[in-house]
Amino acid sequence: MVSIRRFRESDWPAVWPILRTTFEAGDTYAFSPDSTEAEIHRAWVEAPSATYVACAPDGQVLGTYFIKPNHPALGAHVCNCGYVVAPFAQGRGIAAAMCEHSQAEAVSMGFRAMQFNLVVATNERAVRLWKRLGFTVVGTLPRAFRHLRLGYVDALVMFKELPA
Amino acid sequence: MVSIRRFRESDWPAVWPILRTTFEAGDTYAFSPDSTEAEIHRAWVEAPSATYVACAPDGQVLGTYFIKPNHPALGAHVCNCGYVVAPFAQGRGIAAAMCEHSQAEAVSMGFRAMQFNLVVATNERAVRLWKRLGFTVVGTLPRAFRHLRLGYVDALVMFKELPA
Repeated sequence: MVSIRRFRESDWPAVWPILRTTFEAGDTYAFSPDSTEAEIHRAWVEAPSATYVACAPDGQVLGTYFIKPNHPALGAHVCNCGYVVAPFAQGRGIAAAMCEHSQAEAVSMGFRAMQFNLVVATNERAVRLWKRLGFTVVGTLPRAFRHLRLGYVDALVMFKELPA
Repeated sequence: MVSIRRFRESDWPAVWPILRTTFEAGDTYAFSPDSTEAEIHRAWVEAPSATYVACAPDGQVLGTYFIKPNHPALGAHVCNCGYVVAPFAQGRGIAAAMCEHSQAEAVSMGFRAMQFNLVVATNERAVRLWKRLGFTVVGTLPRAFRHLRLGYVDALVMFKELPA
């Protein structure tokens, strides 16, 4: 059973290696594979409205996500989230649990919709999961992601209106 | 005849009232209608890769645009631009001239595509213009823009691949 709670600064030593490993692969997020710890801390913890961790019963961090408005004021009712699951914890439903959690958080924060701006089309597991959780592919951006192994690949814009 | 050149700090006293008037209307950009001068200077001049002004032969500023990468590293080959034409200079082809100029600049900066993230669907003149200039509507974001007069309206994602 995974439990999800707000990120605390004392989680960072566990969160950073998970993020670094994910971004180094260059197959799911646009962050540079060479990003510094400070850059990623800024993007994942400081810039967002809130950051969360998903933990095992023994407290081990298995995943993390952030939530933030996708645009300023007149677009700020739509939120954006990013989710990362530790490589050693894949396939245990943690991404799904975090996405469900984030939707509830989004509603309680007053967001009316959630948008993913750059879902890498070759990340089929993610695309399938977001669809299962109610997201729709509203657009395809041709060759908008430079995949570290595959080169330029399409990226999807996915969107879900949230219950009021 | 409009001429387009890089923004200089001495242009700001002419640029800011144009931006302020535009954002106050709350019908085209997500920036808060109450944005401060410092906030908009940051967003329009400091954060982007480059900012430009379109000038009349006598030097009067008639419009302005910025260009920046739309995402970090692995999405940074796609650029994003924002264009504003002074209310008193509408209908003279200045937006078209700036968009053509920005595409050439984008190519010379090494960008491979241009993306508009939040084109307000009710801004029909803009949508028509971007289509005429080769952009495609790749997605519709339901009720993603809170129009100051009309309430929640759809926004479009528009995209154009640029020649190498």
